[in-house]
Amino acid sequence: MSNFIFQKTLIIGVGLIGSSIARALREYSISSEIHGVDTSDDVLKKCNNLNILSSGKKDLKDYSCQFDLIIICSPLSTYKKIFSSLSSFVKKPTLVTDVGSTKVSVIQDYQDTCSNQDVKFVPSHPIAGIEKSGPEYGFSKLFENRFCILTPINNNDDFINDVKSFWKLIGLEIQIMTAEHHDRVLAMTSHIPQLIAYSIVATASELETHIRDEVIKYSAAGFRDFTRLAGSDPIMWRDIYSMNKNAVLEMLGRFAEDLSTLQKAIRNNDTSFLEKTFSSTREIRKLIEKLGQAGSFDPTESGKNKKN
Amino acid sequence: MSNFIFQKTLIIGVGLIGSSIARALREYSISSEIHGVDTSDDVLKKCNNLNILSSGKKDLKDYSCQFDLIIICSPLSTYKKIFSSLSSFVKKPTLVTDVGSTKVSVIQDYQDTCSNQDVKFVPSHPIAGIEKSGPEYGFSKLFENRFCILTPINNNDDFINDVKSFWKLIGLEIQIMTAEHHDRVLAMTSHIPQLIAYSIVATASELETHIRDEVIKYSAAGFRDFTRLAGSDPIMWRDIYSMNKNAVLEMLGRFAEDLSTLQKAIRNNDTSFLEKTFSSTREIRKLIEKLGQAGSFDPTESGKNKKN
Repeated sequence: MSNFIFQKTLIIGVGLIGSSIARALREYSISSEIHGVDTSDDVLKKCNNLNILSSGKKDLKDYSCQFDLIIICSPLSTYKKIFSSLSSFVKKPTLVTDVGSTKVSVIQDYQDTCSNQDVKFVPSHPIAGIEKSGPEYGFSKLFENRFCILTPINNNDDFINDVKSFWKLIGLEIQIMTAEHHDRVLAMTSHIPQLIAYSIVATASELETHIRDEVIKYSAAGFRDFTRLAGSDPIMWRDIYSMNKNAVLEMLGRFAEDLSTLQKAIRNNDTSFLEKTFSSTREIRKLIEKLGQAGSFDPTESGKNKKN
Repeated sequence: MSNFIFQKTLIIGVGLIGSSIARALREYSISSEIHGVDTSDDVLKKCNNLNILSSGKKDLKDYSCQFDLIIICSPLSTYKKIFSSLSSFVKKPTLVTDVGSTKVSVIQDYQDTCSNQDVKFVPSHPIAGIEKSGPEYGFSKLFENRFCILTPINNNDDFINDVKSFWKLIGLEIQIMTAEHHDRVLAMTSHIPQLIAYSIVATASELETHIRDEVIKYSAAGFRDFTRLAGSDPIMWRDIYSMNKNAVLEMLGRFAEDLSTLQKAIRNNDTSFLEKTFSSTREIRKLIEKLGQAGSFDPTESGKNKKN
């Protein structure tokens, strides 16, 4: 008798996140078979070489079997098409979840395109990732000690617990909130920092060549912290700003105001205001460290701590 | 016979950087005695407990001996007073250098307050640091594979080479440029990223309580990268913005323009512009990784890579 919780799992989009889920499903013996759909031949080839999947195909229609669990891990702009395909494909009750960084748009897309009652969909967002993309960068421990936010469409759906259990098994701690609230919180914790990182790296890249080369050379001075984020997948992020436009513009407005205030303080030599602001922000950092969400940064290139 | 290059070295300001230099001087047997001046009793006590210094005192005047090398590692706002004290204190030819993050203001302060020809001053800026402050966080390897920018007052000064040699011995690679150029480059690589980090963390801390708590909780989504910088020493940074005002305001203006352009693209659903910008910034990241200046970030809390 098998201990697997799922017989057949399908991952749609086998990039960094999808492949990390596939690795975790296998490592923790959660699913007997792990299949994948990806529109990119290159991705499927890499998955094959890395032996991550039981099978990989270019289209959902290429599968003749049904699945117990389907996880959507592709860019937000593909969701409508995917929900529509699932609506025709699914023939038995199937747990469906996703990893999308916005949730209002995902629910809207689902409701607009999927009428199949066998699709048991629970919108999810595991808050985990690195700045690399592609299945070759995935790893099974990516989700350990991270949060997964669920924004159920109906809080009474009995299959919510099954989706919860799945995420917990790969290391995530579950939080439930509304899609609207999720999108505002993530605008601030994720979408705005990312946009600013893109923006400052763009500013640097437009400097006159000799200064730009030096900015890169001396990036250890602080700039490099921003470039890590700016190394992320352009398509994924393009879609996020398009799908979470309102919350992003609101938070961006607040940020622009605060930056102007600091700019004015510098112009007016208001050193006491600067000192006060810089002291208060330090407290926030301490809280994040205390919560164990800070990650580990090593200023050297060694990948390990070199402290004496 | 001793192999030490310096008999007596004095470090003025024994915080993170000062104590890291002290540790490196000892570890590499560069100086026989390593003394320290710090106005804080707490810092002197910590240095004593950590056994970093041969002796530590609160004031330069407390020393009756002379030194071969003096390194200023205190906030920029203290420089005038320090140069003035050095001008009266120094009685024999003495190498003097510093670690200040701006260089035009440092040279101005030196020229305004120090007329003693025995003070052989070479302005320096080792581009190294972490977000912690205090002697307890210093470590001798902090400078390994990092750059040290020298902005000599007179390029013909024969003692420049001695200062170069000192920095090289603790692991730094030397670059020479004008103070003005240094200040523009650092505005972009260091002062602007830092200001933006402070600003976004300030924005987050002003959100309504329930959202703020969640922003901290879910900071692994990107926000935490900014909070690392915002954990830095407030006094040090207050002084930097006051001393490099013009270059900072110029670069901030450029950044604000670029951010507005992205904001407008989001508002107008110009997804192709977003995708193009996000793709170009990725290249800059790759260059920084190639140059070995990216540091090592581990998304987990383990301090080591957990890749499968």
